Amino acid sequence: MAESWSFLDTVESNFRPLVVIELAKGTKEETIEWFTKRIVDKKADGGAQLLIKPLVMENGHENIYLVGASHLRLLLGAETVGLVKECNDNSMRTFTYSSRKTFKDFADDNHNFLTMAECQYIIKHELDNLRAKNEKMIPGYPQAKLYPGKSIVRRLLTSGILVQIFPLHDREELKKLRHSWYGRVRVGYQPLDEIRCYFGETIALYFGFLEYFTFALIPMAVIGIPYYVFAWEDYDKYVMFATFNLLWSTVILEVWKRICAILTYRWGTLLMKRQFEEPRPGFHGVLGINPVTGREEPVYSSIKRQLRIYLVSLPFVCLCLYFSLYVMMIYFDLEQWALDYHKENESNFSSLMLYVPSIIYAVVIEIMNRIYRYAAEFLTSWENHRLESSYQNHLILKVLVFNFLNCFASLFYIAFVLFDMKLLRQSLATLLITSQILNQFAESLLPYWLQKRHNKRMKQRTCSQKTDIDLSLAEQVNMEKEMGTYLGTFDDYLELFLQFGYVSLFSCVYPLAAVFAVLNNITEIYSDALKMCRVYKRPFAEPTANIGVWQLAFETMSVISVVTNCMLIGMSPQVDALFPDSKMDLVLTVAFVEHLLLAIKFIMAFVIPDKPRDIQIKLAKLEFESLEALKQQ
Amino acid sequence: MAESWSFLDTVESNFRPLVVIELAKGTKEETIEWFTKRIVDKKADGGAQLLIKPLVMENGHENIYLVGASHLRLLLGAETVGLVKECNDNSMRTFTYSSRKTFKDFADDNHNFLTMAECQYIIKHELDNLRAKNEKMIPGYPQAKLYPGKSIVRRLLTSGILVQIFPLHDREELKKLRHSWYGRVRVGYQPLDEIRCYFGETIALYFGFLEYFTFALIPMAVIGIPYYVFAWEDYDKYVMFATFNLLWSTVILEVWKRICAILTYRWGTLLMKRQFEEPRPGFHGVLGINPVTGREEPVYSSIKRQLRIYLVSLPFVCLCLYFSLYVMMIYFDLEQWALDYHKENESNFSSLMLYVPSIIYAVVIEIMNRIYRYAAEFLTSWENHRLESSYQNHLILKVLVFNFLNCFASLFYIAFVLFDMKLLRQSLATLLITSQILNQFAESLLPYWLQKRHNKRMKQRTCSQKTDIDLSLAEQVNMEKEMGTYLGTFDDYLELFLQFGYVSLFSCVYPLAAVFAVLNNITEIYSDALKMCRVYKRPFAEPTANIGVWQLAFETMSVISVVTNCMLIGMSPQVDALFPDSKMDLVLTVAFVEHLLLAIKFIMAFVIPDKPRDIQIKLAKLEFESLEALKQQ
Repeated sequence: MAESWSFLDTVESNFRPLVVIELAKGTKEETIEWFTKRIVDKKADGGAQLLIKPLVMENGHENIYLVGASHLRLLLGAETVGLVKECNDNSMRTFTYSSRKTFKDFADDNHNFLTMAECQYIIKHELDNLRAKNEKMIPGYPQAKLYPGKSIVRRLLTSGILVQIFPLHDREELKKLRHSWYGRVRVGYQPLDEIRCYFGETIALYFGFLEYFTFALIPMAVIGIPYYVFAWEDYDKYVMFATFNLLWSTVILEVWKRICAILTYRWGTLLMKRQFEEPRPGFHGVLGINPVTGREEPVYSSIKRQLRIYLVSLPFVCLCLYFSLYVMMIYFDLEQWALDYHKENESNFSSLMLYVPSIIYAVVIEIMNRIYRYAAEFLTSWENHRLESSYQNHLILKVLVFNFLNCFASLFYIAFVLFDMKLLRQSLATLLITSQILNQFAESLLPYWLQKRHNKRMKQRTCSQKTDIDLSLAEQVNMEKEMGTYLGTFDDYLELFLQFGYVSLFSCVYPLAAVFAVLNNITEIYSDALKMCRVYKRPFAEPTANIGVWQLAFETMSVISVVTNCMLIGMSPQVDALFPDSKMDLVLTVAFVEHLLLAIKFIMAFVIPDKPRDIQIKLAKLEFESLEALKQQ
Repeated sequence: MAESWSFLDTVESNFRPLVVIELAKGTKEETIEWFTKRIVDKKADGGAQLLIKPLVMENGHENIYLVGASHLRLLLGAETVGLVKECNDNSMRTFTYSSRKTFKDFADDNHNFLTMAECQYIIKHELDNLRAKNEKMIPGYPQAKLYPGKSIVRRLLTSGILVQIFPLHDREELKKLRHSWYGRVRVGYQPLDEIRCYFGETIALYFGFLEYFTFALIPMAVIGIPYYVFAWEDYDKYVMFATFNLLWSTVILEVWKRICAILTYRWGTLLMKRQFEEPRPGFHGVLGINPVTGREEPVYSSIKRQLRIYLVSLPFVCLCLYFSLYVMMIYFDLEQWALDYHKENESNFSSLMLYVPSIIYAVVIEIMNRIYRYAAEFLTSWENHRLESSYQNHLILKVLVFNFLNCFASLFYIAFVLFDMKLLRQSLATLLITSQILNQFAESLLPYWLQKRHNKRMKQRTCSQKTDIDLSLAEQVNMEKEMGTYLGTFDDYLELFLQFGYVSLFSCVYPLAAVFAVLNNITEIYSDALKMCRVYKRPFAEPTANIGVWQLAFETMSVISVVTNCMLIGMSPQVDALFPDSKMDLVLTVAFVEHLLLAIKFIMAFVIPDKPRDIQIKLAKLEFESLEALKQQ
């Protein structure tokens, strides 16, 4: 390997720009010089051994740099990040430069062996791992301290010298992807493999999940339609629907794990070794010795963090929850007022008025969710978690708890305190539909429209009437750097999670919820695709093997839905009528059925293997091979 | 490594016998010659490169062989099995011969670097991995077929040529261990590290769990005593006791995981890589290609196995369960009869008679459990599982379900159908105490007595009056080979599992159960220790990192106990009295509290980390190092 590094030359004839680095205006010359030198420097000298070129802009805007790398450098980088690729014998293996010839489609002159997203991921990884040697500070900025081993890019980012790093779009590829993704109106699967090649595994997996989830909801929707059409209100039909729903929701979550394993095996991420997790950019503390790596790095006492979590964050979350409940009570006042109004002057207008409180409440819920989201991000960031994963977990927990209560508290209250099934149905429908409309608008259409207007103005300014594809590189960079940044799949999953709640928690009261969810998800696929392709900057690809904590969140929701549905069925007048003599027997029967269903759920989750048999065999084969190789050593 | 193998010489001056091989009487000469040659042959020639010596017996009994190995061979074997040992810098690392100097207490002339149990484990591993080359059958036994890669020892065992393989006791060491384990009467910890050195990790972990579990029960016992002494019957005290019990049982199971991690980290097994699992000895099928290894080996269709499981085993288990319930009904008839008898002629004798049905039932339960155990073993073996782990899981599942129902069905029936708390308490006490006495007797005292009688007779026959320690090697082998075989920790864990059920399922009715459990466990430690040291053959050490499926079994039991205790409390007359107006409210409140407790349980299980922080850091450190090493490559 040492040999192959020396082959590398930092000058290559065909420089292909992959990643854009934007430095702040007025960045000192010596800083730029030092930074670009570190990027170009040989690996042996502690550099990243990449290629970098300043971008000459027509409008004179400077400090934008294009980063690329030679083909050989990218292959060596693929080995460093531990990419897993398909071999000639159809097995998936970790790529190494020395075994490169055994990989499918590999040829020394085939520059498409690595996808553009992979190349950009490698460059990002190399830039992130560009570490300070003996520098005590960033040259030219004495306040931006460095210590041996500190990631230079992260320090540049936190001190504001580096504005952003983002990967370039590939206009040609994007056009092809757009066409096969949402260009033609058709019913069918999304081109997940193409999405993965262009946007990376995390985003492709989200779209895979969205698609799978939509298909999985179809049976529920189909069974739900006759309840609406024929106005079925019989208890036995509701019981059947709810029971089907509960078992179905367990099955779909288990089957997703299997499908996820199939997808990520094909993409190689199932086998990818977890990289050692470095501290997140925002993490700060006094310099100390990390007990794991033995390196000098900022250390922050775990007790201080616990104090921040339990003495500040927890009370704040509780306060927010209390506030959310308070708003809910106002909603019920409004609801009462609308009802009184409808009773007093009965008219078409007044019956429409009945929906107004729910709509207002739905809007308020959305607003509160969004404001809370910012607060949660701020607080979690302030808690100063060392690892990105720990930060994410705390953020997700905070957001999930609040969103769950905020969205569903009123429904729980209507169902189990007011016992008003009619209001529950109406409220559920209004909340679900309003939140779906709002989401679609706020997440995709609004940014799309803003972006379009912005582009138009930009074009007018540069007086060019070219289409996207003819733009010069400088124009393309200029346009893309102004686009919004995609902040990850968090909000998208959250939306699906809440939707899953609306569909499953009270499914036996409002079987039509699944129909709306399916309709929403079909448009969601298109609007999310639009968002990814046209509204936001291209995000860096992020390898992932599963949907992480969301699997747990969905499973928890499906457990809660067993409890709520059993309670709802137990409260229905038809079931009540079955036990005319003793309410005790009714409650005991319901409790028994609930426990039975929960037991079945857990047994099913336990019995259904998480990976399909052929994937299991392939994994066992790889494990066996590596054990054999170890023995041979 | 190839070099070091060549240093090995099969002849060494100081041959230390480690493992005994007993061949059947009248085994053909050519078979013995071929087998011993294979054991002695060089690794390069497909042999095991061990040392073997026939044992010359006074009474002319032949076909007993002693197996040993040179020091160097054992060190290389330690590398093959992947032993993890402590280094000079106190970290735990996988032993490799080339890095041997970095390990604590290593010296080329220190033959105690590997414990005797480790040496025996290595020899067993090497013998098990002695594979057929081109032999089509065992020489001299044409019906004992071989194929390339088949384990020779396993074929010899299944065809009855090899009677047994067992490791020799070390009389000196055993005496020391016995002394520090149960030699002196004292309150304190067991010498777990010494037990581990002598018997291996699986057995040491069982004793560790037994000890931990006993200590963990003490708070429950202490809190339970005043309930008996002061005859507390207040509902609030029972509720407190039950709530404490439920949370406590969650905590102890979570804390055990942490303690288990501490123990197995210290013993090196937490870090030990899982070896590739070979088919179990009893597995048979037609020759085919294993899709994982690509080797020729017996293949048995998964569908056939499924058919056997679902069409034979499952109905059989159901039948057994039905039979067990039938016996239970007979017990209730007996109970009724005893009650009638007591009413008719009231006397001391008749009130004693009240306990007789329970005692008889307890004995019958024990007998049924034991018979069922054999049936389950037979059936699971007939199901023809390929892997030992899969065999074990199916066996454990079968046995657990039956034992659970057999032991607790009558208690559930009394509690939730008859609503007779007095009978429940009496029945629980009788079942618990009788089963404990029976177990202690059947498991340890009876075998000990039999063994002692046997030894005496043996000694009389050889006319020698020596103590154990002075026995010649031949005498020692002769005595040990007649000892019973310890069949693993299964029965011991099962006993603890059922005890945990008695203590936790109905804890709020009979707080004294924990007291009896503690008393039983203290004697259990001694009797189990006695059993291991004096009654059974020394078992082969078996590395393990946790108590496996038992953790899950105990956790399931503690979930079930939440449900039963909440129901019991809800049914108590004192709680009843709190809700004079509405039984509905009572049931709803109980159901709510139950769900709350279950939620708390799951959150606690989720929040308490499975490994202590320092172990986590040590593991992260090792992972980091191996990632760094990979990068350097």
